[in-house]
Amino acid sequence: MIRVSVVGATGYTGIELVRILQQHPNVKITSLTTRSKDPKDIEEIIPTLPKNHGLTLETFKLNKVVKESDVVFLALPHTQAMDLAYDLYKKGKTVIDLSADFRIKDAQLYEIWYGKKHTKKLLLGDAVYGLPEVFRSKLKKAKLIANPGCYPTSILLGLKPALENKLVDFESIVVDSKSGVSGAGKKLSEATHFCTVDGDFKAYKVNQHQHMPEVEALLKKFSGKKVSIAFVPHLLPIERGILSTIYLKKAKGVTPQKILKAYKEAYKDEPFVRVKPLGTFPSIKDVVRTNFCDIGIWSSARSKEVIVISAIDNLVKGASGQAVQNMNIRFGYDETLGLV
Amino acid sequence: MIRVSVVGATGYTGIELVRILQQHPNVKITSLTTRSKDPKDIEEIIPTLPKNHGLTLETFKLNKVVKESDVVFLALPHTQAMDLAYDLYKKGKTVIDLSADFRIKDAQLYEIWYGKKHTKKLLLGDAVYGLPEVFRSKLKKAKLIANPGCYPTSILLGLKPALENKLVDFESIVVDSKSGVSGAGKKLSEATHFCTVDGDFKAYKVNQHQHMPEVEALLKKFSGKKVSIAFVPHLLPIERGILSTIYLKKAKGVTPQKILKAYKEAYKDEPFVRVKPLGTFPSIKDVVRTNFCDIGIWSSARSKEVIVISAIDNLVKGASGQAVQNMNIRFGYDETLGLV
Amino acid sequence: MIRVSVVGATGYTGIELVRILQQHPNVKITSLTTRSKDPKDIEEIIPTLPKNHGLTLETFKLNKVVKESDVVFLALPHTQAMDLAYDLYKKGKTVIDLSADFRIKDAQLYEIWYGKKHTKKLLLGDAVYGLPEVFRSKLKKAKLIANPGCYPTSILLGLKPALENKLVDFESIVVDSKSGVSGAGKKLSEATHFCTVDGDFKAYKVNQHQHMPEVEALLKKFSGKKVSIAFVPHLLPIERGILSTIYLKKAKGVTPQKILKAYKEAYKDEPFVRVKPLGTFPSIKDVVRTNFCDIGIWSSARSKEVIVISAIDNLVKGASGQAVQNMNIRFGYDETLGLV
Amino acid sequence: MIRVSVVGATGYTGIELVRILQQHPNVKITSLTTRSKDPKDIEEIIPTLPKNHGLTLETFKLNKVVKESDVVFLALPHTQAMDLAYDLYKKGKTVIDLSADFRIKDAQLYEIWYGKKHTKKLLLGDAVYGLPEVFRSKLKKAKLIANPGCYPTSILLGLKPALENKLVDFESIVVDSKSGVSGAGKKLSEATHFCTVDGDFKAYKVNQHQHMPEVEALLKKFSGKKVSIAFVPHLLPIERGILSTIYLKKAKGVTPQKILKAYKEAYKDEPFVRVKPLGTFPSIKDVVRTNFCDIGIWSSARSKEVIVISAIDNLVKGASGQAVQNMNIRFGYDETLGLV
Repeated sequence: MIRVSVVGATGYTGIELVRILQQHPNVKITSLTTRSKDPKDIEEIIPTLPKNHGLTLETFKLNKVVKESDVVFLALPHTQAMDLAYDLYKKGKTVIDLSADFRIKDAQLYEIWYGKKHTKKLLLGDAVYGLPEVFRSKLKKAKLIANPGCYPTSILLGLKPALENKLVDFESIVVDSKSGVSGAGKKLSEATHFCTVDGDFKAYKVNQHQHMPEVEALLKKFSGKKVSIAFVPHLLPIERGILSTIYLKKAKGVTPQKILKAYKEAYKDEPFVRVKPLGTFPSIKDVVRTNFCDIGIWSSARSKEVIVISAIDNLVKGASGQAVQNMNIRFGYDETLGLV
Repeated sequence: MIRVSVVGATGYTGIELVRILQQHPNVKITSLTTRSKDPKDIEEIIPTLPKNHGLTLETFKLNKVVKESDVVFLALPHTQAMDLAYDLYKKGKTVIDLSADFRIKDAQLYEIWYGKKHTKKLLLGDAVYGLPEVFRSKLKKAKLIANPGCYPTSILLGLKPALENKLVDFESIVVDSKSGVSGAGKKLSEATHFCTVDGDFKAYKVNQHQHMPEVEALLKKFSGKKVSIAFVPHLLPIERGILSTIYLKKAKGVTPQKILKAYKEAYKDEPFVRVKPLGTFPSIKDVVRTNFCDIGIWSSARSKEVIVISAIDNLVKGASGQAVQNMNIRFGYDETLGLV
Repeated sequence: MIRVSVVGATGYTGIELVRILQQHPNVKITSLTTRSKDPKDIEEIIPTLPKNHGLTLETFKLNKVVKESDVVFLALPHTQAMDLAYDLYKKGKTVIDLSADFRIKDAQLYEIWYGKKHTKKLLLGDAVYGLPEVFRSKLKKAKLIANPGCYPTSILLGLKPALENKLVDFESIVVDSKSGVSGAGKKLSEATHFCTVDGDFKAYKVNQHQHMPEVEALLKKFSGKKVSIAFVPHLLPIERGILSTIYLKKAKGVTPQKILKAYKEAYKDEPFVRVKPLGTFPSIKDVVRTNFCDIGIWSSARSKEVIVISAIDNLVKGASGQAVQNMNIRFGYDETLGLV
Repeated sequence: MIRVSVVGATGYTGIELVRILQQHPNVKITSLTTRSKDPKDIEEIIPTLPKNHGLTLETFKLNKVVKESDVVFLALPHTQAMDLAYDLYKKGKTVIDLSADFRIKDAQLYEIWYGKKHTKKLLLGDAVYGLPEVFRSKLKKAKLIANPGCYPTSILLGLKPALENKLVDFESIVVDSKSGVSGAGKKLSEATHFCTVDGDFKAYKVNQHQHMPEVEALLKKFSGKKVSIAFVPHLLPIERGILSTIYLKKAKGVTPQKILKAYKEAYKDEPFVRVKPLGTFPSIKDVVRTNFCDIGIWSSARSKEVIVISAIDNLVKGASGQAVQNMNIRFGYDETLGLV
């Protein structure tokens, strides 16, 4: 049994964390915190909690969190986690940070995309990028885990086998992603008003989303070279889920069967990645409220095109579920414990 | 005042036609027909009609339609319009066919994609493809108008200036389209059950949608060469609207300004195409229930990528609105008459 | 041709007004105003306007509006219209006020329910309640029209024939109403965030909605006595529309046929009220984007219960469409002009 | 560990049962059956199942189900469960029937409302109505459990304390219920097509829903007399959830505090009923995907009206969750086991 705190328990990823952790057999939730001076009852924030849940929401106090926790999840807005992560790290706590603050190793790049100076650059080297399908062995000993972004999770799992096995051209990668509204967080804006979103669909941050450098850093690792992508995210009129449609060009001599085999092979022991038969494709509802990433592939002997479609729940495999998966790895538990 | 019939007035495109025509100042609707032997009251099908609309729905009878109409709209399923179009054409009626039956000039290609023999090949040469932005002058005298598909309308208007002006590579065109459910028609299926669609999003007919040859035929016309596209349509959990995100590679020496200028120029006199400022993009709600096609462009001096996003209402500019626009052109009316 | 201004053109009712007025054959829109010092382009607010619409959005200036208008629509929040209505009224303009400020004749009651002192009580007597089905003859000469609330429109049209003809007990009236989110206006709140509303449904202001006194005042007029209702409004996860389910008890000796006849009779010449056959009921989609109020009745010889269900579009018959209907009446036009 | 079968595992309640049972610590699922001769893979029906779930879907065979099960859930359409329930009952299996076939003790009434002869009348006496909050002690020994309807669950839990404690008039009960689309089942119909439902809301089976006799039988038990209700169900454009708004008249001398106290008292030990503070009300999202029934009450010293609002998930507390709760009771487990 480990003692777990969630800092920032009232946002969408915080709420999802509490829902998962509260059913985890090896976890004791010791504190749930908010920046508010006058916290609401937690069941006002998460009405689906069981009766007699025994949880309370408190104003954040560092000492209390340090004293009561083995692991601390930070579910804070980008740029607001770095200092706190450092404080907790120094006190010997395992930190799982759901913000972007330690995902990009290159501080300068971080500063360009997130518009704020990185005050804890020295920690960037110690942070492990929390994509278990890539960094599982490092995660076992990680003290600071930078939990991946939602778009990057869907894109990187969709691209890894193709790039590592050099099955496709690296020059021509198009990623068209669609996300539910919870990906934009709880902050009020005209863009997330029900009357704006209902019945609508649109692109945003066209080819300039802040998740692009996070993706491209990993693609370099997969392929051994600098790889650029064209990337357009879109807003779906649904609450949860991301579907990424990825367009690739087959490398010379590659067959559809070879591609499928590479994907099957890459993920055969992965508990949360499911590769579908050639020519069949995932839908968001296949994975919503689960920690799965489902992948479908189109490829034909007569065509250069290769199309990979991946689907996740942005709040689960794209955030809080993956964070718990990382915790399980870090503490030596069965990786699927407490996750569906 | 022209006398107008709609054959197949109970499907989504038929309903939309009746709604538009019923407010058109120069149109007298003379018959609305269905294949049903026992037609319902039209206001059961279209409850939003005004009181005392004076319209009735009748079982289709060729002679009556011929006698009462100057122009006949065919809003029938694909493969079921060709014979009827021929009968009406022979009787000297102007026919506007909303099905796919006369869109593809190459009968063999039609037969591959639509799985049925084309019984009226001789008429294919006379049919004019009803995209006013391309074929306006021919449409003025057309006797048989093949109204374009919904996806092709959004894609072709998005690509025409780029291809005609050779602003992009012809080898690398990716089209990622998303459509509302009405595009799938009224036929019942598990795929269109509310509980399936609500909260979901998925791709279908990945790189093998029957609209691909229709698109590629026009792209050849625009560019002067055979052009292929990668094309994935997706199903949005909304009733109406299509948004197509098109990924292109800039040709050598082309600037973003040059691209924008070409689009602005191409559509400056078009009443229903609106080109947005560089870096701004349409949303489906901007065009829903209108005959507009809105277009936004991303291009940067530092990048090879060019991204074009176009939005239409699949039932209006993608079907019935465009059909009425074609009727206006054909009968010498102001092209916007009766259209919003 | 009359000159029309809309004060407050950027809220949902303002937008709907502009959309309707802009297609009205006898109207010239002379000014659209906002309280903002730096108004956006009107097509950013209403992207579905036709190309070359010629409209601009301006900061409100009283003198300009007075000079340029025959009729002024006030589409302002409750409590913010009274002073302005007075100024315009004094200058001899016809004022159609879509707020609640002149709907309740009893200023004290207004102050209780709207929490603000009524500064223009003297005008209350001159204001005509803009429900054409009740006050048509007064509306023909009205100088200040208090356009009804959305819930009251649906409820009053559903109750009028039953009460005027004493077909039901006056002691036992239950009204269960359900409204789309646009009824709550454009203001941002957690309650109207997409992720809150999507997939949800709930009651609000249970038996204490500010529309209750407005309803009860009219019910007194219909019945000749003080009548109370139980009233619970609910929030539907849709953009537009209100459906009110009204539960009544049949008075002695009344038959279902008598009830139906009374409703048919009451509304037989009304262009925008449609009474359905006994035992059939309206749905919101039957009336959405129209100025109709549809009414269905359940009554049985074996039961005391009478159930009346009425449906409107809250932004059309419940607000801006009805306002234009009132304008048509006031200026002697065909009442349906410009309305669907 | 008990061996459990689900007969009819491919409908919405069947799917929900499998999802719940599959995570239940004391359950071994031994067979999942369908009437189809050629069953699909279960993960095509329930894509959110974990990898390596080990479940298969089979054509129903009585002997196999008998041999392999301690308890059998019947998730079949109404009128199709009675014979099978009888067969299993005779073989000594515990049967939990989610259909309506054994809910109504009066076979004649059943036949009127469900339009089919009841072939197993003798079993009606043995069947226990599976509402734990009313029949818990009988359920402990039940061999045939008639799992309640979704509307009745929401209505009966909302009315029980008021009627048992004679806090309200029995003559004046109005129930206005709203349900998500899954309540209508998986069968295809124009009424459940996405384009019909999306953006719509309407009443159906006005005052003649087949759940009325089921409700009224229990109300008689609560109150000691024959009690009738006015009942209108409505279709919400959401997938899951029921909210019932119940209008009552306070009995003489009853105070709001007394009402609240009665509700609090009635449900204080119930694990799945939550009574909210006076004047606060549940929303569907508070209970969706949980086995909760949440209840809110409006009552005022100055008013005769009492308004009770209850919310459940129609597929959980309104069907499959309640069925598992009943199983837990029947087999002596903690009542909340496997339920959220």
